[in-house]
Parts: sequence; structure tokens; C-alpha cells
Amino acid sequence: MTPLTTTTTTNPMNSDEFRRQGHMLIDFIADYHSNIEQYPVLSRVKPGYLRQLLPPSAPYEAEPIEEIMKDIQTHIIPGITHWQHPSYFAYFPCSSSTAGILGELLAAGFGVVGFNWEASPAATELETIVMDWFGEMLSLPKPYLFSGGGGGVIMGTTCEAFIVMLVAARDQKLAEIGKDKIGKLVVYCSDQTHCALQKAAKVVGIRPGNVRAVATTRAAAFALSPDSLESAVLADVEMGWVPLFLCATIGTTSTTAVDPLKPLCHVAKEYGMWVHVDAAYGGSACICPEFRHVIDGVEGADSFSLNAHKWFFTTLDCCCLWVKNPDALKRSLSTNPEYLRNQASDSGGVIDYKDWQLTLSRRFRSLKLWMVLRSYGVANLRSFLRGHVAMAKAFEKLVAGDDRFEVVVPRRFAMVCFRMKGSDDDDDGDEGANNLMNKKLLERVNGSGRVFMTHALVGGIYLLRFAVGSTLTEAEHVMEAWKVIQEHADAIQGDYKHLY
Amino acid sequence: MTPLTTTTTTNPMNSDEFRRQGHMLIDFIADYHSNIEQYPVLSRVKPGYLRQLLPPSAPYEAEPIEEIMKDIQTHIIPGITHWQHPSYFAYFPCSSSTAGILGELLAAGFGVVGFNWEASPAATELETIVMDWFGEMLSLPKPYLFSGGGGGVIMGTTCEAFIVMLVAARDQKLAEIGKDKIGKLVVYCSDQTHCALQKAAKVVGIRPGNVRAVATTRAAAFALSPDSLESAVLADVEMGWVPLFLCATIGTTSTTAVDPLKPLCHVAKEYGMWVHVDAAYGGSACICPEFRHVIDGVEGADSFSLNAHKWFFTTLDCCCLWVKNPDALKRSLSTNPEYLRNQASDSGGVIDYKDWQLTLSRRFRSLKLWMVLRSYGVANLRSFLRGHVAMAKAFEKLVAGDDRFEVVVPRRFAMVCFRMKGSDDDDDGDEGANNLMNKKLLERVNGSGRVFMTHALVGGIYLLRFAVGSTLTEAEHVMEAWKVIQEHADAIQGDYKHLY
Repeated sequence: MTPLTTTTTTNPMNSDEFRRQGHMLIDFIADYHSNIEQYPVLSRVKPGYLRQLLPPSAPYEAEPIEEIMKDIQTHIIPGITHWQHPSYFAYFPCSSSTAGILGELLAAGFGVVGFNWEASPAATELETIVMDWFGEMLSLPKPYLFSGGGGGVIMGTTCEAFIVMLVAARDQKLAEIGKDKIGKLVVYCSDQTHCALQKAAKVVGIRPGNVRAVATTRAAAFALSPDSLESAVLADVEMGWVPLFLCATIGTTSTTAVDPLKPLCHVAKEYGMWVHVDAAYGGSACICPEFRHVIDGVEGADSFSLNAHKWFFTTLDCCCLWVKNPDALKRSLSTNPEYLRNQASDSGGVIDYKDWQLTLSRRFRSLKLWMVLRSYGVANLRSFLRGHVAMAKAFEKLVAGDDRFEVVVPRRFAMVCFRMKGSDDDDDGDEGANNLMNKKLLERVNGSGRVFMTHALVGGIYLLRFAVGSTLTEAEHVMEAWKVIQEHADAIQGDYKHLY
Repeated sequence: MTPLTTTTTTNPMNSDEFRRQGHMLIDFIADYHSNIEQYPVLSRVKPGYLRQLLPPSAPYEAEPIEEIMKDIQTHIIPGITHWQHPSYFAYFPCSSSTAGILGELLAAGFGVVGFNWEASPAATELETIVMDWFGEMLSLPKPYLFSGGGGGVIMGTTCEAFIVMLVAARDQKLAEIGKDKIGKLVVYCSDQTHCALQKAAKVVGIRPGNVRAVATTRAAAFALSPDSLESAVLADVEMGWVPLFLCATIGTTSTTAVDPLKPLCHVAKEYGMWVHVDAAYGGSACICPEFRHVIDGVEGADSFSLNAHKWFFTTLDCCCLWVKNPDALKRSLSTNPEYLRNQASDSGGVIDYKDWQLTLSRRFRSLKLWMVLRSYGVANLRSFLRGHVAMAKAFEKLVAGDDRFEVVVPRRFAMVCFRMKGSDDDDDGDEGANNLMNKKLLERVNGSGRVFMTHALVGGIYLLRFAVGSTLTEAEHVMEAWKVIQEHADAIQGDYKHLY
């Protein structure tokens, strides 16, 4: 039986209690980062593990923080795949930092909801400033910055940016061709574009059959060919379809391929399309002058986004989107109910970010990006990224120096795509023995708990992706990873020898 | 001239530095909460204030945390509208707590991206458990829980929940009636439904003219009438339109009106509609048995959402959505690119939350909700909410006891809708002198910096909304607010006297 009253008189925002628990948590996280190497990178729990460990219902009475922390250590941490582990080389990194984590903490501490200017002017104004700072660091053309008539906004993820851009482009096009013609609209990308684009197109009502994933080739390093794009567009136009949108990618998920912006924009503009540049991963590198060329031609596009939570030390979530024509967004996404009216908005002289995005409520995300930029400065940020690139380069060299392996596509950023070579006649598509062997290798390496990598399948080739970018990764972790991979390659070759 | 190299050798996740800065930040936030009453609730800065205070570009060199914190104190805090201020009674609360803030911190510290089960099993499994716990606390019917074949998911905001539900309903309906019939679909709500629904409908490709905002009346306390709904539907069906979706609200933004679920679901189901229950604000109260009746009839709906970041002590963002048929979501939102394939997903025995929502990446939000539930327990959480309701009740009594004021609609939760009475013949719609007088009153009260409230306009009546729910609010702040309101009412009556 639960007692009738068990209420505490302490306010849940009591400062003394916040201080006590807060210091405890800070130490907990610092210890977690210090000890992270003791955990297997990839969690080893089995599906359903946690339901067996936790009670079936929420507690009636309050529980002390000490009990909760104990459960986090005992029950939660074993179920975590440690994205911040220095031997995490999977997917793309979600690179963290002290400034990023504490920026998120501070935003939660302020607890403001900056949907419009008045609801917290600092949240809106800092975002405009930081987006101009960051845009300048990337040498984005002036028309993308507030200072040049465009502007930036921070969203959660690229998926949201896709939806927002598609809605803006869709409504602009339907205003031209008639609002009943949504079934005519066609979206273009490559077969390497992130799947989030197909999903976003579906969400906004584009027919799933009307997304053209133009085929790429290994010979062209899986970049979208402007000629192939033009052929696809021409064929569609002849059939009466209406080209709407092109998504070009700077650093594709499978192989970090870079689509050539200048000629692609040329084709797209010929046919009146909106061009969005998805630089979720590769964009960050553009703060280094030696990488800036990968977005040459961006001046011909309409919008550009990158995830500062991917390879820019700003914790999830922080997708930075710049657009040349914010009015196109605002036309599609503005809402003006009476209960949100206020003098500042009515004056037209302020930005209400709710009209630049899907959601009304929004966290104070610019705070963490600002803290990252200031805490490290341009010089260190470049140096961190270059450090990751140098480690990837070193890994690429190790792979190239081992006859059993090959680098599948030339490295562009801090990710190496490689695989074990098979005998020549194994190389017969995704069902081939070589692919299976590499799949086995990956399973064994990940199963070791010492390294976590993921795979891709491009042009029928199953390859391993070694993505450097976890903030704690140092050269020794790359060497250690290579040792683990080699060990398992030895074992696999032993297994396979009798097959030949 | 910038020097050629200014790089530091310290890793940006160095634990010692994290600890040092982290403790500093915790104290900063604790002090901010302790001293929050010294700030004007509504920020007083002028548009553009911050650009004049910050440098035009990001720093090249790293800056010490001490400098950054100084700027936060001097430049950011003055631009903040203090949502956590005990005299904040505007919009709806974004009620915070130690557990909520520290849960967000811990999630940032782990820095995992739980898009699928494998990417961090604990992130997925804790979410399923906590959503079942919370669903049980609300006495949601079993079919909404995982244990009953449905299930819950945590999103950012209700806007996302709307989009996801509309997409699922849309695709289900188009599969029945033909995929080219999107232009036929109609969405129903009341003229009190949150504007995010209209926006969401637009996003998913519903024609803006096909959202029916059925008129409500003051006599019915601005609740959606099932008869009015049925008339609207009948008229549409006769014209060949296809009813798709009904959004019922539990606690509308303007007046916290409660739509009657049971008869509304009855009508909606008659016409094959998806029914979503938006309990963003009012839902939390259902953990108290005396409020649970407001969602009677929810068993007839398809999905139910509330914002734990509104009135449930879990920091922004944390929208909890339960659905009876997760397959409908998954059919619309699943993506299965090769680079995300893994054994666990292939087995079909795990939940990949990426297929339940718009975005791929997702924060470990369940951690903070779990910490809130455990740190306070059901008993305290009920008591906190009842405390807010009691304060609102007290305020309502003060208003009712002053002849110059009237309560516009009966209070349902912790918000009081009131206004100064005018002379009878002023009461002539939104342009009337009475509305202007109340607008003036609100401007003066908010301008004082001692209280922040917002307004609504319903049935031509401009009313002031007094929403209790900021965690730090105590009875004395409500009394003080009433005093401020009375003072300004006196002054306004003085101003207006010569007009009569």
C-alpha cells in the first residue's frame, strides 16, 4: 500500500539541491569520459535487457539521486554504444566537446523557449550573429548571410532542413504552375544521397516515384554527374513532369563523395530548380582553406546546411542551415495567431524563427555553437579537424601498405573506405564471396568491443567505413584499430583458406 | 595579423578541464536561479541590441571560459525573457526542474545518437519503458502502451507529432482512395486548435483551404461541438471531399478549453478519420485522478500527445506521443538504407525509433523524463501540479472578488482567463474600447518587469491569460502579480475616466 501523502516541501528547482546534484553529475560525466576506454565500444546487451532490470511502473515516492546514478552506472551504461569512445569509427562521428556539452547545459538552465524575438531576444539575436560568424568561417558567399540579405537558422537535424527546403520550393513552384499540380513535381538527387531526402520528399507530399536517384559510378568516385542529371531532367520534362529540387551532397554517407556544385547548379537553374547543398558531414572542413574548394559553386545554390553536431564539436542537435531567400521559407511556414502577437513582431523589424522552421518551440541552441566557436577559436577548430584528417590519412597508408587490403575510393576528408581484397573472380557483386568475407570481418571486429566501424554497399562493393572524428581519438587508437582489423583479417583468411 | 599557429594541445574533451568548467557552470546556473527575481521577467532590450555588443567575427584564438561567462552575464542575460522566473505567467509554462536540467546534461555527456536500437540500445529501451510508465500514470488505455500493442515515442515538439500523425493518416487514406487524391483530403479542428496544426497540414501537402477550423462559442466554453463537427463533415462529404483527420485539444492555448473526446471520436470514426488528441498542456494534469476525466473517451482516438516540457518539469524539448498502431507510422516513415543495416534491425525484434519520427538523429531524451519521474515520484509530481492549480484558483478568486474585473471562462487547469470589465456598450468586438483598455493594461503590467502575462482574443474578447506553472512560483508571487495588475488597473481607470 502506498501512503496517502509522501510529498516533499522542497521546490524541484531549489538551488542548493541543484548545486549538490549538479556537481555530482559533472564529476560523473568527467569520470565517464576518463574511463570510457574500459567499455566495449559497441554495446553487447541483448534486445529487451533493460525491461528486466527496471521496475514495471514509475515510483510513487521520490528516489534519491544516488540511487538513480547507481542505476545509470549499472543498467544504462552497459546498454550504451559509446559514440564518444576514442575507438568509435562508425557512421559519422557526433563529435563532442566541453564547450558543446556545457552550452547545452546552460541552455537547459536558462530554460527559455525562443520561438519569436520577444520570447527571448538574446536567443534569436545570438543565433543570427553566430550563423553569420560561422558562415564567414566557411567563406559562404555573402548572399547566405544576414549581412548579405540571406540568413541562417539552427535546426535539429538535416532531415528537418530537407523538409523545410522542400516545402519552400514546393510552394514557390505550385504558385507558378497551379496548386493542384503537386503530383507533377520531381526531386533529383544521386543514388548516394542520404535516405532522409526521400523521406522528406514523401513527408511533403511528393509522390515516392517522383524522386530520381540518379546512378553514380565508382569511376566518378560516386559523385553525381551533371550530364546524368541533365539526361534525367530532360527525359522527365519531355514526359510532362516538373523539375522542382536538386539535392547535392558534400561528403556522402557511404563514401564521402563530393557532388560538383558548379555544373550541377548550372543544369538545375536551367530548369528552374531549387538547389540545396547537404554538407552535413563535409561542410565543417570548409573552415580550412585547403578544403574550401569542395563547395566551390555554392554561390549558384539556394540553401546550404551542415551538422555542427557531426564533425564540429557541438553536441546533438545542431543543424546549421543558410538560405539566400528567407522570404521563401517564411511564406510557407509563417503562422500568426493572435495569442503570439506582440509589438516587436508587428513592427516587422525582428526575426521570429518560428517562421523559419517546422516547430514553434525551440531550444537556445546558438549558445552551444557560440561557446564552441569562442572556447576553441578558428585556429584550434581547424587544427582539430586537420588532426582527424591526418589520422585518416595515416590509416589509409596502413591499408594501402597491406597487400590483403585495398582502399575502395580515394579518401576526401577523415573517412577511409576499404576492404579485404578477394581473388579476382570473387568480385561479382553484392552476393560475392568477397563481400561476405568483409561482412564477416566487420562483425568480428565490432564483436571484439575494441573498435566500432560500419559498412556501406556501393556499386555492388561491400566496404568498411573507418570514420575518424570522435573527439577523444588519438593516433594510438587508430594504430590499435588497425591492429585489431589485421588480427581478424588473419583469422578470417585462415577460415577461408580451405574454401579455395 | 593573426599568428600562423595558435593551437592548443589540450583535447576539447579533456576531463580535468570539463570538470573545472562544469563546476563553474553548475554554480552559475544555481546562482542564476537564486537571483532570478532581480531581473525583469520580460526582457527590455531593443531589437539589434546584441550585434552592437559582440565582435563581427568569430575569434581566431581560443577565449577562456571566464571571458565567455562574463559576456553571458553582461550581454546575454539582459536579452533573456526569464521563462523560469517565478513571476512568469505568460504563454504556457516551460516548467523546469533539477532532474530535467541534469537529465539533459547527462544526455549531452553521453553524446549518443540513438536512431536505431544498435546505435545505443539503452536509449531505445529506456524510452519504451518510460513511455509505458508515463502512459500508466495518465491511465492511458492499454492499447496505447507497448504492453498493449501500441507504444510511445519522444519527439521534440507537438508540431512534429502533428506532422507525423498527418503523414501516417494521409498515406493510410491515400492507399484506400488512390494516391492522386491528396487534394481531396480534409482536416478538422476547432477555431481554438493550435496554429501548428494548420502549418503541419500545409507541410504534408494538404491544401490550406482544406483545413476546417470549426467555430466554437463562449457559451460552450470554446470547446469543439460534436454537432458542429458533424455538420461540417457532412457538408464536405456531400461536396466530394474526403474526411481525413480530426485534432481534438485538451487545454487549448487561448483558454485551456477541453474538447469532448467521446462524442467527437464517435463522429470522426463514423467517417473513417484518424483522431489525434493534442493534450500538450492539459495532459499532464491527468496524473491526478481528479483531472483524469478530461480525457475520458481517449480510448476512441488513435494517438495522444502531451509536452512534458510544458507542465511536467522536463526541460525543452520533450513531446510524448502515444499511438495505438505504430505500424501506420512505420509504413510512412521507415527508411532502410544499406549503411544503416544491422543484425538487430534485420531480426525485426527491436524498435528503431528513426522509423517513428521525422528525423534520423535523436537525443537521449528519455533520460531526463526518467530522472524526473524517479527524482520526484508520482506523489510529488501530483502535488506540484495541484499546487499550481491551487494558486490559479486563488488568483481566480481574487479576480472574482474585484468588481472591476471578470473571469472570462471558468478555469479548468492552472490558467485564469480574465479581463477588466468595460461599460456594457464597450463590449462590441475586438475593436471595442474594452479590448483596447485590456491591451493597454497588459502592456503596462508587462512593461513593469515585475510580471509577464500574454493575451488571447476569443469570440471577439481580448483577455489576459494568467498561466501558473513556472516551477519557482509560490503563492506570494501570485499575490504580488495581482497587486501589480490592480495598480495598473487603477492607473488605467484614471486614464480612461475622462473618456466616459
